[in-house]
Amino acid sequence: MKILLLNGPNLQLLGTREPQIYGKTTLKDIVSTLSREALTAGAELVDFQSNHEGDLVDRIGSAPAEGVSGIVFNPGAYTHTSVAIRDAIAAAALPVVEVHMSNIFGREEFRARSFSAPVSVGLFCGFGADTYCWALRALITKLKGETIC
Amino acid sequence: MKILLLNGPNLQLLGTREPQIYGKTTLKDIVSTLSREALTAGAELVDFQSNHEGDLVDRIGSAPAEGVSGIVFNPGAYTHTSVAIRDAIAAAALPVVEVHMSNIFGREEFRARSFSAPVSVGLFCGFGADTYCWALRALITKLKGETIC
Amino acid sequence: MKILLLNGPNLQLLGTREPQIYGKTTLKDIVSTLSREALTAGAELVDFQSNHEGDLVDRIGSAPAEGVSGIVFNPGAYTHTSVAIRDAIAAAALPVVEVHMSNIFGREEFRARSFSAPVSVGLFCGFGADTYCWALRALITKLKGETIC
Amino acid sequence: MKILLLNGPNLQLLGTREPQIYGKTTLKDIVSTLSREALTAGAELVDFQSNHEGDLVDRIGSAPAEGVSGIVFNPGAYTHTSVAIRDAIAAAALPVVEVHMSNIFGREEFRARSFSAPVSVGLFCGFGADTYCWALRALITKLKGETIC
Amino acid sequence: MKILLLNGPNLQLLGTREPQIYGKTTLKDIVSTLSREALTAGAELVDFQSNHEGDLVDRIGSAPAEGVSGIVFNPGAYTHTSVAIRDAIAAAALPVVEVHMSNIFGREEFRARSFSAPVSVGLFCGFGADTYCWALRALITKLKGETIC
Amino acid sequence: MKILLLNGPNLQLLGTREPQIYGKTTLKDIVSTLSREALTAGAELVDFQSNHEGDLVDRIGSAPAEGVSGIVFNPGAYTHTSVAIRDAIAAAALPVVEVHMSNIFGREEFRARSFSAPVSVGLFCGFGADTYCWALRALITKLKGETIC
Amino acid sequence: MKILLLNGPNLQLLGTREPQIYGKTTLKDIVSTLSREALTAGAELVDFQSNHEGDLVDRIGSAPAEGVSGIVFNPGAYTHTSVAIRDAIAAAALPVVEVHMSNIFGREEFRARSFSAPVSVGLFCGFGADTYCWALRALITKLKGETIC
Amino acid sequence: MKILLLNGPNLQLLGTREPQIYGKTTLKDIVSTLSREALTAGAELVDFQSNHEGDLVDRIGSAPAEGVSGIVFNPGAYTHTSVAIRDAIAAAALPVVEVHMSNIFGREEFRARSFSAPVSVGLFCGFGADTYCWALRALITKLKGETIC
Amino acid sequence: MKILLLNGPNLQLLGTREPQIYGKTTLKDIVSTLSREALTAGAELVDFQSNHEGDLVDRIGSAPAEGVSGIVFNPGAYTHTSVAIRDAIAAAALPVVEVHMSNIFGREEFRARSFSAPVSVGLFCGFGADTYCWALRALITKLKGETIC
Amino acid sequence: MKILLLNGPNLQLLGTREPQIYGKTTLKDIVSTLSREALTAGAELVDFQSNHEGDLVDRIGSAPAEGVSGIVFNPGAYTHTSVAIRDAIAAAALPVVEVHMSNIFGREEFRARSFSAPVSVGLFCGFGADTYCWALRALITKLKGETIC
Amino acid sequence: MKILLLNGPNLQLLGTREPQIYGKTTLKDIVSTLSREALTAGAELVDFQSNHEGDLVDRIGSAPAEGVSGIVFNPGAYTHTSVAIRDAIAAAALPVVEVHMSNIFGREEFRARSFSAPVSVGLFCGFGADTYCWALRALITKLKGETIC
Amino acid sequence: MKILLLNGPNLQLLGTREPQIYGKTTLKDIVSTLSREALTAGAELVDFQSNHEGDLVDRIGSAPAEGVSGIVFNPGAYTHTSVAIRDAIAAAALPVVEVHMSNIFGREEFRARSFSAPVSVGLFCGFGADTYCWALRALITKLKGETIC
Repeated sequence: MKILLLNGPNLQLLGTREPQIYGKTTLKDIVSTLSREALTAGAELVDFQSNHEGDLVDRIGSAPAEGVSGIVFNPGAYTHTSVAIRDAIAAAALPVVEVHMSNIFGREEFRARSFSAPVSVGLFCGFGADTYCWALRALITKLKGETIC
Repeated sequence: MKILLLNGPNLQLLGTREPQIYGKTTLKDIVSTLSREALTAGAELVDFQSNHEGDLVDRIGSAPAEGVSGIVFNPGAYTHTSVAIRDAIAAAALPVVEVHMSNIFGREEFRARSFSAPVSVGLFCGFGADTYCWALRALITKLKGETIC
Repeated sequence: MKILLLNGPNLQLLGTREPQIYGKTTLKDIVSTLSREALTAGAELVDFQSNHEGDLVDRIGSAPAEGVSGIVFNPGAYTHTSVAIRDAIAAAALPVVEVHMSNIFGREEFRARSFSAPVSVGLFCGFGADTYCWALRALITKLKGETIC
Repeated sequence: MKILLLNGPNLQLLGTREPQIYGKTTLKDIVSTLSREALTAGAELVDFQSNHEGDLVDRIGSAPAEGVSGIVFNPGAYTHTSVAIRDAIAAAALPVVEVHMSNIFGREEFRARSFSAPVSVGLFCGFGADTYCWALRALITKLKGETIC
Repeated sequence: MKILLLNGPNLQLLGTREPQIYGKTTLKDIVSTLSREALTAGAELVDFQSNHEGDLVDRIGSAPAEGVSGIVFNPGAYTHTSVAIRDAIAAAALPVVEVHMSNIFGREEFRARSFSAPVSVGLFCGFGADTYCWALRALITKLKGETIC
Repeated sequence: MKILLLNGPNLQLLGTREPQIYGKTTLKDIVSTLSREALTAGAELVDFQSNHEGDLVDRIGSAPAEGVSGIVFNPGAYTHTSVAIRDAIAAAALPVVEVHMSNIFGREEFRARSFSAPVSVGLFCGFGADTYCWALRALITKLKGETIC
Repeated sequence: MKILLLNGPNLQLLGTREPQIYGKTTLKDIVSTLSREALTAGAELVDFQSNHEGDLVDRIGSAPAEGVSGIVFNPGAYTHTSVAIRDAIAAAALPVVEVHMSNIFGREEFRARSFSAPVSVGLFCGFGADTYCWALRALITKLKGETIC
Repeated sequence: MKILLLNGPNLQLLGTREPQIYGKTTLKDIVSTLSREALTAGAELVDFQSNHEGDLVDRIGSAPAEGVSGIVFNPGAYTHTSVAIRDAIAAAALPVVEVHMSNIFGREEFRARSFSAPVSVGLFCGFGADTYCWALRALITKLKGETIC
Repeated sequence: MKILLLNGPNLQLLGTREPQIYGKTTLKDIVSTLSREALTAGAELVDFQSNHEGDLVDRIGSAPAEGVSGIVFNPGAYTHTSVAIRDAIAAAALPVVEVHMSNIFGREEFRARSFSAPVSVGLFCGFGADTYCWALRALITKLKGETIC
Repeated sequence: MKILLLNGPNLQLLGTREPQIYGKTTLKDIVSTLSREALTAGAELVDFQSNHEGDLVDRIGSAPAEGVSGIVFNPGAYTHTSVAIRDAIAAAALPVVEVHMSNIFGREEFRARSFSAPVSVGLFCGFGADTYCWALRALITKLKGETIC
Repeated sequence: MKILLLNGPNLQLLGTREPQIYGKTTLKDIVSTLSREALTAGAELVDFQSNHEGDLVDRIGSAPAEGVSGIVFNPGAYTHTSVAIRDAIAAAALPVVEVHMSNIFGREEFRARSFSAPVSVGLFCGFGADTYCWALRALITKLKGETIC
Repeated sequence: MKILLLNGPNLQLLGTREPQIYGKTTLKDIVSTLSREALTAGAELVDFQSNHEGDLVDRIGSAPAEGVSGIVFNPGAYTHTSVAIRDAIAAAALPVVEVHMSNIFGREEFRARSFSAPVSVGLFCGFGADTYCWALRALITKLKGETIC
């Protein structure tokens, strides 16, 4: 089972800027932790980050051919503006979990609207770096056809 | 550590109506599973379901005095209409995780707006009954000051 | 065949306040007439009025287990604000006729929007207390699989 | 007592197109049934159907001079777009019952707005061809100054 | 010089209905007065009233070929809904004065919007039947290339 | 009979700026012509122009005490923004004719909305300087209780 | 003279939570002070607080029969969402003063809209607990037919 | 195979007014060309133009009974306002190609909205009179079950 | 302690126009009463009324230098349109009580929006001339650091 | 004559995903067919597909220097969100035909708005892969200064 | 070359209120600096500040006759509400640079809309008192027909 | 001190297309001029232009590590659509001056909204190529902690 961890714009900056505010966890740290977490669950994690909407569309588009089973996706700011990513998800027909480290509902009005969430399986937000882990676990559990509740 | 599992309108019907669609998991089943899950994590789960907006406001209001540390909350339809519940959460000053079994972003326009999410810690949705478990685990982990990522 | 007559907020006041305007027909009178009307048609009428949104959700939720075949429902002001009642109707999967004594389209802008009508069978309004009777007759006829036209 | 049965655009097609969906009841059948129904109640039914907004305005305008006492009116699509018909009803100062065979509130957003309903006595919808009959009975009862509840 | 007096829906009813409110001046009276008024000014008045949007479009479309020099036009309710009439005026390239007997700005919100006014020369409203006369005089004066101020 | 000719912001510039576009008629010319016109009709014209919203409110407020019978008013840009002027007109309870030399409906969207028109008797626009004259004549005729149609 | 002091959702928490912010005045304190204040003015104060919209509708509905002369009402969050309460006030036909301790106009956009204010006598807000007193005094003065200015 | 060429309001004026702007191609020319084009493709063209919304609804309604296989339709201004035409197309269940000679997206805001396009097969616009030909060819090709790409 | 009583447009007319509706209390009466009221409370009242937005901005701007401690302010129609007054209040950093004699929430939609209220301490409305007195008393009490509840 | 065939996001997937729904025609097939089609008409086709908004802007920007005479463009999801592409088209001052294989007007609301259409020559949609061919033919015909109607 | 420095409401307060926040630079200081700056560039600076919308309209209206070549204008709060000022600028046909010391786009929603900017040459904001200087230099450079880039 | 000159989509075309309209100044010319200007002020200018939103996000993201002190930024069309760029600016925590050569407020409605301006220091627009220079000077002055006024 191969899981794609996809990160959108500005997430390359995690942990390296203003650590007193956002913590010291870098995107690299998150990828390491999630890779181990995936391995333990018998899955492989591949990761990709880009600030380019087109790169994200490319990668989602090629995911089925790559053998990807599901996607943990933090679309960053493209959440609120990208119809192209929405269409890519719908075309790929793979289960996607949308992730946001912050609570997007408690910020500016325009951040409460997601173009990608309607075509995803679900959305997890608000628990910082941990949000990725919970999303990964939920996705793998679902892909295995298991339930924990 | 005491966790309040709070469920809003129509959730008493889970598992007893149209099981071919929504599955056979009842609210009672969810409560049992979450209680065990909480115990394992060294926490106690108390649960409350009501179709009354006022009951939910009452219970959130008395939660701090009851010694509740955090709330796993599926506000059901009140998500989209209740300012009273929003104010109760803000006043209680307790961490709340908003839970929806379905993906509320893929339904009618008016379901994409949540009055309670902005004053919650985060929102988890789209993984059916399991969504409650992931939310519970995330909340307890956070309350313990731990991270898993 | 059991029909539930459901009345929402402020309808307990019918006939007892400002009779020179709204007439002297009380809710009790309406219930009596509709009960006789139902009996004549070989049906039983049970009635329930509440000013509580939650009570209405409760009752709609328990209607299928009670053996109710259909609902004549005047949601009063909750027509315009309650998603919880809408969800209860959709979950109950029972035929509902929405009733309003006044013509809700000739009043304030916000009264022209109904959350419950889209999940009901139909809507009758504008004929005062008689609106209930026409709705009851229409519902019973439909439940019997008959047509009058 | 003379009642005008008025039908707007596309209603000439009733029963002749897609009978497996809309049933086999034609507009002619509805007119026949309503005529008998009217006669039984001591009234005369005249009917008129047109796809032309102007024809409907013409006929409503001449109704008072024709001795019409009330109108059972399905404005079809003009419900949502015609201010001219609204003004004709207001000028005629005759009681009008607006009828829709389908539940207009459960369809596209723009169908939930009626220009004619605010100047009508009431609105009945959702019971297929029977909706006309219930509306006719309600109107005649009202015109006779009777109540059934 | 030929002037077309054009009247839209429901204006055939002027003076014959509710004279205590709208006065006893009929459309025929207005036409007579305006004809005399036009003659005095050395112009000919032709008039046309219809409840049909299409008739009004037809007549505006044929006006240039008829030798019409300008139009005094009360579009009635089509003011607020007809793009077809707007396009007909723009295509005819004739000066049009829009007339309303009542003050359309002091009524329902939707009456404050005119599709035809932006392509007309001007708009006169609020002086009852006299509004037509002032509009006719203004139009003829303008067509003669004269000014009165 | 005393008529107040009231002009709002920027109208002091009439005829002195860009005469090739707006013509050479100055506000002074308009006042002279209207004064003669008023005299002929047995009325007196007083005029006032200001770029100050407050001056216009002052003058409308004192008009009844001055013996003014009616107002010919071009509110200029305050048409679209001033609630204060609207309230002054409503309080003065004098008949006001709103005048615009250009066709305000054929310009920017925000110019199609008038705060003062709903509380005026009527609105005349689009005939350049002549619009004032037609408005004055219409107002005097109305004040005399006469009709010309 | 009997005055009803009515308080809506979350107001049971006054003074017991975050006293450093909201002060130490509890709802009980406010009731005591207002009772004394009422007695001094020769009136009796009865009070009721509930987090339930339905309870508030019930109590307003029964107020006339209880002999209540006027209501000092802080609807809390229901201010912004409850049509049922608005209708209850309109039906009761009693003078209501709407009270808010904070300045609702300086907070979130949705708090600037009140469903109940349009059917109330007036609204007082922004003076903390004292706002209740000023409202009570104003209401009693008005009920006595007195003025203080 | 019979194709209906349908033209809405003001299109009777093509080529006869302002030829320096719109060209000299008349509607009659277009009909001739399209008839030959249809014959070449083994189809018959019938054409109908009307300024009346009702006529267009009539003709679409009778098209199936006439043996029409598809419609090339320029609804003119009714594109933006007619729900009746939309319903007629949906009821006729015939393939319709919507045609506009100009680019409707580059004009006033209200012209960018089409009520008929959502129930049509497709929309072609912007190539002047040629747009009809391309639409006719596309429709015939589709009706024959052929593709050209 | 010096209190500024500030009144906006049209309030100079109080009591002198339509006394049968608004009562006979003039602005001068209100000023007298409030002056006495202020004196009793150990404060001095200065008053200012203007129909000019700029005058009100001037006076608020100079108030701190004048030694004003607080402002009782009825902005009249500028309530709904003036950002300049809002900014003046914010800059002056003085406590302001907004006053309206009528219930602004029960009138036209545009009157329910106040630009000045968000930067004021609070808002009192609906008690006629008495509203000024209650507001003055509330302000003085607050300025003294006292509470009455 | 050189024609640029430009395709936006997700169109690389044509024919390779869900062939039972979208058919087996790949983008490569479309390019081949259009190339032959162009050659026959004496033109050369160059093609470019990218999921990157910037790539599309780049290519449109360099098109004039490349000797491109016109563009057949399916902007995919960027149709609804890209002002950058709109500006690129406007700057290139080349004729563009916008193409959509599906009927964009019969899908989600946000797909009915195109940023690029207003600056294009026209728009063709709804005929699947054939839509490209019709658009290519229409563009070449126009570029040759020919008409077919 | 004469430059008019125009300042709108509340700007008389610059530097005299809350110096710890806004700095100690007064409007007088700004005028002095700009006067020297203008002199150095061979221009004369005249300045005018008013809290009155009408004064600003007056001054802009008389500027061409005064020999003013261009205007540096901070309209303050009238930026967002004044159509009269917009019209005055358009009528004066002088180049205007709109200046704001703060970044108006980072504040309340209503401050992001400027009525005057669309008829100005450009807008400079966000650099405190220096913004005036940059604007003055840019304007003089432009008036001299020079460029610095 | 290092200043980054950043240019968004379509700005590579400056000066090379339609020189009679936009002038002959190319982006290269602007870069040269600004480089000299920067040197004179003791700063270094690095420049970057891209049509890719992602490239701009990349470059802003790496700017702090590159030692950039401030950014002169013309985001072109991404001004109106890019949340990703806004977030990049906010994360970089560097002072940004937004520049537009044209007056974006005098064009289409959607160009009056900037996503990046609220997180920038200020915005300069409308002075063609010179706008860049004024912005650069203002930025360097600010970075040096100097003022010119």
